Amino acid sequence: MQRPSGRRPDQLRDISLEAGASLYAEGSCLAKFGNTHVLVTASLEENLPSWMRGQKRGWVTAEYGMLPRATHTRGRREAASGKQSGRTQEIQRLIGRGMRSVVDLTALGERQITLDCDVIQADGGTRTAALTGAWVALKQACLVLQAEGLITQNPLKAQVAAVSCGIYQDTPVLDLDYQEDSSAQADANFVLAQGLGLVEVQATGEERPISEDELLSLLSLAQKGCERLFAAQRAALGL
Amino acid sequence: MQRPSGRRPDQLRDISLEAGASLYAEGSCLAKFGNTHVLVTASLEENLPSWMRGQKRGWVTAEYGMLPRATHTRGRREAASGKQSGRTQEIQRLIGRGMRSVVDLTALGERQITLDCDVIQADGGTRTAALTGAWVALKQACLVLQAEGLITQNPLKAQVAAVSCGIYQDTPVLDLDYQEDSSAQADANFVLAQGLGLVEVQATGEERPISEDELLSLLSLAQKGCERLFAAQRAALGL
Amino acid sequence: MQRPSGRRPDQLRDISLEAGASLYAEGSCLAKFGNTHVLVTASLEENLPSWMRGQKRGWVTAEYGMLPRATHTRGRREAASGKQSGRTQEIQRLIGRGMRSVVDLTALGERQITLDCDVIQADGGTRTAALTGAWVALKQACLVLQAEGLITQNPLKAQVAAVSCGIYQDTPVLDLDYQEDSSAQADANFVLAQGLGLVEVQATGEERPISEDELLSLLSLAQKGCERLFAAQRAALGL
Amino acid sequence: MQRPSGRRPDQLRDISLEAGASLYAEGSCLAKFGNTHVLVTASLEENLPSWMRGQKRGWVTAEYGMLPRATHTRGRREAASGKQSGRTQEIQRLIGRGMRSVVDLTALGERQITLDCDVIQADGGTRTAALTGAWVALKQACLVLQAEGLITQNPLKAQVAAVSCGIYQDTPVLDLDYQEDSSAQADANFVLAQGLGLVEVQATGEERPISEDELLSLLSLAQKGCERLFAAQRAALGL
Amino acid sequence: MQRPSGRRPDQLRDISLEAGASLYAEGSCLAKFGNTHVLVTASLEENLPSWMRGQKRGWVTAEYGMLPRATHTRGRREAASGKQSGRTQEIQRLIGRGMRSVVDLTALGERQITLDCDVIQADGGTRTAALTGAWVALKQACLVLQAEGLITQNPLKAQVAAVSCGIYQDTPVLDLDYQEDSSAQADANFVLAQGLGLVEVQATGEERPISEDELLSLLSLAQKGCERLFAAQRAALGL
Amino acid sequence: MQRPSGRRPDQLRDISLEAGASLYAEGSCLAKFGNTHVLVTASLEENLPSWMRGQKRGWVTAEYGMLPRATHTRGRREAASGKQSGRTQEIQRLIGRGMRSVVDLTALGERQITLDCDVIQADGGTRTAALTGAWVALKQACLVLQAEGLITQNPLKAQVAAVSCGIYQDTPVLDLDYQEDSSAQADANFVLAQGLGLVEVQATGEERPISEDELLSLLSLAQKGCERLFAAQRAALGL
Repeated sequence: MQRPSGRRPDQLRDISLEAGASLYAEGSCLAKFGNTHVLVTASLEENLPSWMRGQKRGWVTAEYGMLPRATHTRGRREAASGKQSGRTQEIQRLIGRGMRSVVDLTALGERQITLDCDVIQADGGTRTAALTGAWVALKQACLVLQAEGLITQNPLKAQVAAVSCGIYQDTPVLDLDYQEDSSAQADANFVLAQGLGLVEVQATGEERPISEDELLSLLSLAQKGCERLFAAQRAALGL
Repeated sequence: MQRPSGRRPDQLRDISLEAGASLYAEGSCLAKFGNTHVLVTASLEENLPSWMRGQKRGWVTAEYGMLPRATHTRGRREAASGKQSGRTQEIQRLIGRGMRSVVDLTALGERQITLDCDVIQADGGTRTAALTGAWVALKQACLVLQAEGLITQNPLKAQVAAVSCGIYQDTPVLDLDYQEDSSAQADANFVLAQGLGLVEVQATGEERPISEDELLSLLSLAQKGCERLFAAQRAALGL
Repeated sequence: MQRPSGRRPDQLRDISLEAGASLYAEGSCLAKFGNTHVLVTASLEENLPSWMRGQKRGWVTAEYGMLPRATHTRGRREAASGKQSGRTQEIQRLIGRGMRSVVDLTALGERQITLDCDVIQADGGTRTAALTGAWVALKQACLVLQAEGLITQNPLKAQVAAVSCGIYQDTPVLDLDYQEDSSAQADANFVLAQGLGLVEVQATGEERPISEDELLSLLSLAQKGCERLFAAQRAALGL
Repeated sequence: MQRPSGRRPDQLRDISLEAGASLYAEGSCLAKFGNTHVLVTASLEENLPSWMRGQKRGWVTAEYGMLPRATHTRGRREAASGKQSGRTQEIQRLIGRGMRSVVDLTALGERQITLDCDVIQADGGTRTAALTGAWVALKQACLVLQAEGLITQNPLKAQVAAVSCGIYQDTPVLDLDYQEDSSAQADANFVLAQGLGLVEVQATGEERPISEDELLSLLSLAQKGCERLFAAQRAALGL
Repeated sequence: MQRPSGRRPDQLRDISLEAGASLYAEGSCLAKFGNTHVLVTASLEENLPSWMRGQKRGWVTAEYGMLPRATHTRGRREAASGKQSGRTQEIQRLIGRGMRSVVDLTALGERQITLDCDVIQADGGTRTAALTGAWVALKQACLVLQAEGLITQNPLKAQVAAVSCGIYQDTPVLDLDYQEDSSAQADANFVLAQGLGLVEVQATGEERPISEDELLSLLSLAQKGCERLFAAQRAALGL
Repeated sequence: MQRPSGRRPDQLRDISLEAGASLYAEGSCLAKFGNTHVLVTASLEENLPSWMRGQKRGWVTAEYGMLPRATHTRGRREAASGKQSGRTQEIQRLIGRGMRSVVDLTALGERQITLDCDVIQADGGTRTAALTGAWVALKQACLVLQAEGLITQNPLKAQVAAVSCGIYQDTPVLDLDYQEDSSAQADANFVLAQGLGLVEVQATGEERPISEDELLSLLSLAQKGCERLFAAQRAALGL
């Protein structure tokens, strides 16, 4: 089995996480997984949506978008079509859940952090690059809150990162690019919390069902991949 | 550990699948998982959406909705608010993918089957009840197509069913009802194809991450549960 | 003249009003007029829309929807198309007006009751079945309010029910089913308050205008029909 | 009983129907019922909506709108709020049905006439003024079609007009203005075809139900009122 | 060079500004520039949009619409299509800015005036006719405020009017009608404040770029035209 | 007078135009005017919108968007709010007109080029940076068309660029950044075609009207600025 990308089955693409990529946002990260580039900003707002007020805790949410020509062929601009696609909503819900899984919302206080994940260029794995970068942006924003004395305690309980895996020509492989993804037999997105375990898995047998052994192999690849992503996150922030 | 429902960890709720529940639809099923009741209709349309035409194959898609007072408190009617929620879209995409995983779209010919899954009453697990019932409705519609000579070959490669599992007080349990679901530490939805394996898994650590062993235990429960659901599907259709 | 349904001109279809058909709603009714089945729930909310607040009175409103395959051919899901049709809005306004015509809004106090009327299966006359069932659901919800001591006085001044009539082959007939309705020369929907008179009439000459005598004949049929519906409403609630 | 307007019970407001009020439209009419002013244009389009094509017949439809400050207090602009209200849709459907009741759609040929009814100033009875003016505009457009030889036969089978009636202080009165309408016990809109009878009635007991005798009195007033409106329509067109 | 309208290059169309054209609005003006007819109403509302409250100043805004058959061929009704076009928004923003350029918002107090500009008939230059009429309606509403003692000081610092100019067959001309506009090489809309200068210019080279000299000639024509419009505004209000 | 940016009145910010910034688009440019960064992609589509077909000519259009946190405070995502703001539409219409002013649509053939202008970071002047970069992207796409032999003739008649000017403390200055723009007395956006003249000007007196002399000074600054932008465009493409 030869991957189209020439990578070994357990090899990530070149990963780059550039913290502070935005001039204005409280936290930000330009996350690159090979040719997939996602700009994530963390925006701090001192007021909460009305349904969250008065509960002595904050909220962390995510929004996701893709520039119309981030992909091989131009997609319709969601702002012009007047609604976000099911895929967009699915992804932003996944990122939001992933972040909240490691946030102590009470320690955050009555404020909201919104993570805007905008795909500048897409070559597969945009949701996992977005989620991995989102943690960097979120951490940076939390450090700002602590530096300014707005909160006294670190609200982040752990690192969280995500990576895709798939079954390509009956072999489990790590971090699919677009070409691999479009001919994979199955793919799976894993969200892991560092030192804690599996936060979320979404696995789909596109061309054929997945066996139990394959699921475990995919999980094992994801664990390896996320360890490297956790290291890259810490490096990006100088932690 | 005592489940709020009093069931054993590996016990499904009372399952009822009533095929032919609709007077007009080509296929239909009223699926009940305990107090969760979903009416599924399969509607056959002889023309395809424009982007599917001329490819000598058909399409199977799903739509999902919930009556405003299917739940303990009234939810806003999506037709009145003018859009389907992210949750709704996520679920109907899941059901559509699950169905298509066992359909030979070429054998279906250039026609579309739409599976409308409407939740009459909700007590947890609406998406898994919907998907399990959708297969019954879809099969019934395919039998109509064969009986009328519109297709010559059975387009369904296997049965497909779904069930939720979760970790409740550190114990893996099968088929959560609403009360169990709202206090579970983690939950997972499994879609299985009979005799083939895992079509889709979506697992989320709500309160805490999931370990590898727990994931395997949940999968094992799902396999047991789906075997019973496959039997119920066959019984509903007299197969 | 022979009606397609074989009924006498002044004969209703088989009527069934099942109170308490919903597990959660404060009031509910599954109303069947022959093959037309409408599930009505009455949901009590302790806060009012902002424009109604502070006036020391409540509000009763209705929403109407039809499952996509309630009919012979599948209709588009209104939640997916992003808006309610003119027909839907016309019907839900009619039901709301009909209910409010017999409610003492001051006796209700500052709370709202929403009547969700969802058509599970349609064979003509869905608005009249919905309205007739809505009164049962509304009454049940009011009895709950009284039983819980939230209100001290019965806010319902009278029963209200509705039935359609039409001119079929120059003969006035009662309670049209779909087949009769689609070939009727004229049709009319009557809403009557028990012991009080005509709350609303909407009559349309589809194929030809209606004479004054015919209008009176239709009204007379409606009066007969509603008397039977009033009896069925009382029976459903054991009153 | 003294009407707020000082009119006799069976007296219309000053009626003015000005045909040809628009520079560009194939037919048009500025209809004034007292201070209620509605501009109606009839626009001829040589292509039909897709669902009407190939049936060798045409279509007549209506749209209705109200300038935001046509009324005592400013209403929200429907184009800005992004949807037409239920009331707007109810009215434009009524006008469309009323017009089609007297049109031979086959004689019209495969073309569409759209009647835009825009309320410049509103003092009650906008739907009846709109419908009465719409017939003038429609007739004018049909005369254009005949003059240009596009059709050979008059597609209009009769005149159609509309008027409101109501019960004010227990007395049936004709053609309510806004002040009368807002304190009437009941109101009714009648659409009549000249020489043929009742095309549509929509009667509502706002404050109390309507008796059978009252319904007949209202119909009798409407017949008188429409006779005068038919004469005004003919005069406006010089027929 | 002969203008299609037969006018001299610096000649306006027949201008008519009828103040008080609406029965209900606090201020109003029916503005006619030849066959272009725009009804403007100024509606006073004592509460502000939430983002303006508590700042001890008011707000002036404009909305613009066109009746579907104001033009040679029918355009789609924006309320039916569910959104305002880019052109509509561009125009209403221009009118709002033009009005606010001469309003002392503090002197207005915490209230809002909305200028609804509805085009009854369009023959080119609808935005300039609307803006010119809007000043008359706004002034009338301010006089009402002063007469009622709600404000003590005139909030309008100057008159403001607008006119279009264009380059037709290489000659600068004033106040284009539709026929001239559609074959002009360039067009420009000027908004001027009486005695103060240029409030806004929007010039576009449709067929070819504009030279510096031409821009000055167009401005000079606009100055002449606006002087006459300022006089017409004063005459309309008897000032 | 000292500009907040410390620049001379006629000094542009640091300009950078990076052609080919996108991996997939037929043409692209990352345009930076100081801290304002806009990514423009030119997407070639071989089919036209239906209203443009069969006319033996092509179309060039533009869309504009801003990432939610491109600015100091987070703005709402237009895809989430379900519509594009008036400002967005105004800008994308301006860019489209500017591009089309130099395109020979017949030479382009029956195909469409869409220019997506997405603001990654905003510090004033986003529309002028977008338009200047859009020409680079458009030129690159046209060179591709020529290289592939799809067109034989260069469809671009000239270069086009844009720059903002303003009156700051009574002095005309070139290329306002956000801080200067928000306290300028007036601002103006100029679009110029190289060697041809003024394609569009939009000037607004924000704080006070603009005199004729000032308008000329602003135009003169814009001419100087655009000459430098034209040179930068050529350098970016190696022309």
